[in-house]
Amino acid sequence: MPLSIINKVITLISSGKVWQQDDLVAVEEPVELRLFYMDNNIPVEKPISITMRTPGNDFELAAGFILTEGIINNCSDIDYISYCIRTDKETENNIVKIVLKKEITVNINQAERNFFINGSCGICGKASINAIQQQSKFTSNHALKISHQQIKQYMRQMQSEQINFKYTGGIHACALFNQEGKMLLVREDIGRHNALDKLIGYYVLRNELPLQNNILLLSGRISFELVQKAVMAGISIVIGVGAPSSLAIDTAQQTGLTLIGFLKENSMNIYTHPERIDV
Amino acid sequence: MPLSIINKVITLISSGKVWQQDDLVAVEEPVELRLFYMDNNIPVEKPISITMRTPGNDFELAAGFILTEGIINNCSDIDYISYCIRTDKETENNIVKIVLKKEITVNINQAERNFFINGSCGICGKASINAIQQQSKFTSNHALKISHQQIKQYMRQMQSEQINFKYTGGIHACALFNQEGKMLLVREDIGRHNALDKLIGYYVLRNELPLQNNILLLSGRISFELVQKAVMAGISIVIGVGAPSSLAIDTAQQTGLTLIGFLKENSMNIYTHPERIDV
Repeated sequence: MPLSIINKVITLISSGKVWQQDDLVAVEEPVELRLFYMDNNIPVEKPISITMRTPGNDFELAAGFILTEGIINNCSDIDYISYCIRTDKETENNIVKIVLKKEITVNINQAERNFFINGSCGICGKASINAIQQQSKFTSNHALKISHQQIKQYMRQMQSEQINFKYTGGIHACALFNQEGKMLLVREDIGRHNALDKLIGYYVLRNELPLQNNILLLSGRISFELVQKAVMAGISIVIGVGAPSSLAIDTAQQTGLTLIGFLKENSMNIYTHPERIDV
Repeated sequence: MPLSIINKVITLISSGKVWQQDDLVAVEEPVELRLFYMDNNIPVEKPISITMRTPGNDFELAAGFILTEGIINNCSDIDYISYCIRTDKETENNIVKIVLKKEITVNINQAERNFFINGSCGICGKASINAIQQQSKFTSNHALKISHQQIKQYMRQMQSEQINFKYTGGIHACALFNQEGKMLLVREDIGRHNALDKLIGYYVLRNELPLQNNILLLSGRISFELVQKAVMAGISIVIGVGAPSSLAIDTAQQTGLTLIGFLKENSMNIYTHPERIDV
């Protein structure tokens, strides 16, 4: 298994002094997701994504990706996931094989359009939002409420589990909390969308979607793509340490998701649906 | 023209108080790049990328993208770049038409493979690095040297020009400097790779590549893709405020590029080729 972090010898300049020392950095490696399915009784093998990711939890990454891209509806569509075994040592853990059950029909054209355009589904923001609303099987949970006091505790909890970040200072994380404020899972990756695919994929593989009573915390900025993935998993509250984009806000507004950004020790910005936050 | 930043009304919670206020956020909108070229005297129209970007400098984005992806060699391969004019108001500035000169041959299969895999060219890191080394027309500049004192001034210079970041707190930037420490250009975008495509594209359109005597500063972390784009533009020194990935470091090492990360007021980490930095 490739490592998540790796040692490099670096030259450090600090306050005019120069020396060499060991330094840990986050591993970035390409992974190819390859889908195997039946099309009119003909077996099809199709590469559906190559993404730069940090090795680890690759099967979760695969499961989360195909669910949030709308290729499968739930865990029971998957026959199995494995690594493609090759004679070439370099690539042996960088190709993930996803085999769907024989009876599953895949609209690969729609799916391909999705991959091609990085999670967007049109060439204007409005088209993108409409497409997500049509795709997601889950609606937002109007009954979910949490206190703003609880949210403040999230960041410290996630930080205590960001092991790879602690060593490298260069890797994204996301965490899932329950309504009582308990942290359930943390995933890290050099790509923020991969970290979220891994987190969602963990629950896909356990057939525990939708995550309608859970709260998602993101370590960085909040893009459209991250909100899209949250909506596809049935998440209703998304909180980011950084800034959201305009399209992330518009998507959250229209899909009924509560979006919070710039989470700090003593403050937060609520961009959409503040009714879920007790103050 | 769509805006780069937009106003939203948000709910702010700070030290237990709650109020509503206006807030500026960075715009995220999909843009489609559509390539027009001749294939054996037959005109071809092909969408080559849809990416989420902040509107503005879209023609630079297009020019930088096709150069760093190896589709064109230089400015003279381009006939013209324009927006596709549509009756649909929503999309009219979100489709960019790139028309190549009739005599230009495009290896679209190679190029497509590149887009598909987000700038990577293989399914292991080694394959990716080899592919870049084969593709780039430019070699690194061994004669380029700068002092570490000069580098410290870069960050403050770039910050003074990060207009959209100042208002939103949520947008990446990159800047180009000359050997004397003068800042030449700043570009901002919600996607770090787009910001760099815009910066490189500015020089592509002026036929001023390679940028072999220049230094590139990045506002965030340094991924493989960003180092790849720098190498394709002939840049030999890349400095990031954040952490580099393992593959970014390996690529820099093998292509002869000086890579610096964690740039701070009084310190910096040099990951590769420290011989260009006078201490």
